[in-house]
Amino acid sequence: MAFSRVARSGLRRTGGTFGSYSNEGDVVLCEGVSIHRNPLPSLQNAKAARDFSYISSFRKIDHLNMQSRGIRVTPQYQSATAERIVEESESEFDEPRYPGLEATKPGEKPRVVVLGTGWAACRFMKGLDTRIYDIVCVSPRNHMVFTPLLASTCVGTLEFRSVVEPVNRIQSALATSPNSYFYMASCFSVDTDKHEVYCETISNGGLPHEPYQFKVAYDKLVIAAGSEPLTFGIKGVQEHAFFLREVNHAQEIRKKLLLNLMLSENPGISEEEKKRLLHCVVIGGGPTGVEFSGELSDFIMRDVRDRYTHVKDYVKVTLIEANEILSSFDVSLRQYATNHLTKSGVGLMRGVVKEVHPKNIVLNDGTNVPYGLLVWSTGVGPSQFVKSLDLPKAPWWKDWY
Amino acid sequence: MAFSRVARSGLRRTGGTFGSYSNEGDVVLCEGVSIHRNPLPSLQNAKAARDFSYISSFRKIDHLNMQSRGIRVTPQYQSATAERIVEESESEFDEPRYPGLEATKPGEKPRVVVLGTGWAACRFMKGLDTRIYDIVCVSPRNHMVFTPLLASTCVGTLEFRSVVEPVNRIQSALATSPNSYFYMASCFSVDTDKHEVYCETISNGGLPHEPYQFKVAYDKLVIAAGSEPLTFGIKGVQEHAFFLREVNHAQEIRKKLLLNLMLSENPGISEEEKKRLLHCVVIGGGPTGVEFSGELSDFIMRDVRDRYTHVKDYVKVTLIEANEILSSFDVSLRQYATNHLTKSGVGLMRGVVKEVHPKNIVLNDGTNVPYGLLVWSTGVGPSQFVKSLDLPKAPWWKDWY
Repeated sequence: MAFSRVARSGLRRTGGTFGSYSNEGDVVLCEGVSIHRNPLPSLQNAKAARDFSYISSFRKIDHLNMQSRGIRVTPQYQSATAERIVEESESEFDEPRYPGLEATKPGEKPRVVVLGTGWAACRFMKGLDTRIYDIVCVSPRNHMVFTPLLASTCVGTLEFRSVVEPVNRIQSALATSPNSYFYMASCFSVDTDKHEVYCETISNGGLPHEPYQFKVAYDKLVIAAGSEPLTFGIKGVQEHAFFLREVNHAQEIRKKLLLNLMLSENPGISEEEKKRLLHCVVIGGGPTGVEFSGELSDFIMRDVRDRYTHVKDYVKVTLIEANEILSSFDVSLRQYATNHLTKSGVGLMRGVVKEVHPKNIVLNDGTNVPYGLLVWSTGVGPSQFVKSLDLPKAPWWKDWY
Repeated sequence: MAFSRVARSGLRRTGGTFGSYSNEGDVVLCEGVSIHRNPLPSLQNAKAARDFSYISSFRKIDHLNMQSRGIRVTPQYQSATAERIVEESESEFDEPRYPGLEATKPGEKPRVVVLGTGWAACRFMKGLDTRIYDIVCVSPRNHMVFTPLLASTCVGTLEFRSVVEPVNRIQSALATSPNSYFYMASCFSVDTDKHEVYCETISNGGLPHEPYQFKVAYDKLVIAAGSEPLTFGIKGVQEHAFFLREVNHAQEIRKKLLLNLMLSENPGISEEEKKRLLHCVVIGGGPTGVEFSGELSDFIMRDVRDRYTHVKDYVKVTLIEANEILSSFDVSLRQYATNHLTKSGVGLMRGVVKEVHPKNIVLNDGTNVPYGLLVWSTGVGPSQFVKSLDLPKAPWWKDWY
């Protein structure tokens, strides 16, 4: 698909610079690198004031962020967590005790704690001199995803394993160095006063007590915990749409797509129902949406025609965008993409989504669009965790609040 | 791993014969082919008596079988199903109406309905002359699994996609021929009188009504719907152990293994707890258990030592078997396997499991074995669906009841 070449060459143009970091304070906040947006300006005075207390944000455990990182949180787990936190807050309100890594002693290597395993975090860790620093990385995801190629895995062009790289291969010190660690956990709070972060491991039902929380003391802290998909508060998006940011999202999309192809062959399914089941709707004409639509149409033209001949004429892809597709790209690339998509049979539609229902979406102008698969890729915004941090943020972030 | 060669050569010895079929009646019952057991003897008089009624087995929808085929059934779904069936049974007790494929007309090709997509079903469909017959295959699984290599996928030696083959590539008529179909569904009842099978599609929340049930009329019927893992009624096996029969089982085992490796690195985990988390216990010394233990020890020696150095000394594999391992193999092969496993650090233990708890198993002699991962491979028996069929079965099946 031509668009992956576009994305790759866009990447190459950044000349190996995957973000800009500032470590004038002890806390560095760095954005997940995007090739289509300016990097975050350097933060001055990032150290928080003395009255900052982590207790204030203690209750805001970041389950949303866990989900966006590919960890599914069951309702049971959420309520258990909530109960436990209330208990602890009551019984040991002043000073909950956590196991964890205590502060480094004089003479030991300083410890750099990195939150996240996205582009920014991985590039940073790769470049860090481990003769000078110990690294502790905390993330609910143990690998980096090469996101520009993620769309290709949904239809089997690429294998899932081909687009990920384990974080301890990117920075081998995490696996081998005696005082460097990777912790598969979500950070839920930062105390810049005590120089500690507070984390909760993801659950698998096997730890001594759950939720299992611990702390890590840091000498330098890098916050690169990633963003969240923007839904603009539209009803039904979280429940019914698929995002495309993690490997498990791609797996779910693939499963749904194949299941719909299979189910539409069932005897007794009406023509209208078949059309709905096999209507793939993509919301958002950014690079992800365009790339995914292209991959889908390739899949339909190459694989579906041969392997699902009974239903091949019912499959349709529609890309819905409020403005123009690939609006941040050069006009010639936009035109190329539009022509290519149209030629491949992808329907381009102008519209703004008002509501998402289990089997159809309603646009602002009242149009009803039935769908079998809905992929939502309208860009990203700051996560609940980053919003909860009492640290100065760049002024343009305010647009997102 | 040497054992996969053993398994492969064992396979080759069968000389391409993947089972024995008898179609003297209209119903053929064929066993999932196992290279370690005799094929099912031909069935005479397989046609059921006139008083056979599918209503009698109507309530026995085979959820267990769905689970063993890689489809997870949520409790909500199960209860919804149960309610619906009761409703239908009451309101239209005499004759529930299903959409479906009606009987073939004179002059049309006769329709062969095949239940299942295992070794037997796939080999049978591959060899069927589609110029003479139309084929309808019904199975909740759209692919065949090359089971002898499944153990290798748990530790990443092989990719999951390398050990499966889509059923419509094995028999392309299913995808391309106008009157041949693959239906992703579970058969829950057979009416040999009317020559019809009754099926329920797997749920994805997108069909006109759910559960979606339909019927398929047949001229010839092949029942090759597969077996189920034997648990001997031991408490806790279904809840806490992993089986190793489907690709999703292998995926779950791999996920659990990596998660345990990661969680054991968490700060504050006691030595004892680390040992438990990283203790992999395999129950059953048949080909699956032995192959899996071997793959695990390879994984530990090659990957874990490099990539999880902090916890590498805690990882241990124990294979528990009541008698001798690989008891159906030649004594020289048994000896070779025993030596190889011992040399690779796999602990061989004699014992019979009494109870399985979330974090430990108890043997008959009272021994307590803590585990982090438990894989259960003690052989297979007939499924609930096959048991529910009112058809004559071979006498040696009675051992299983």
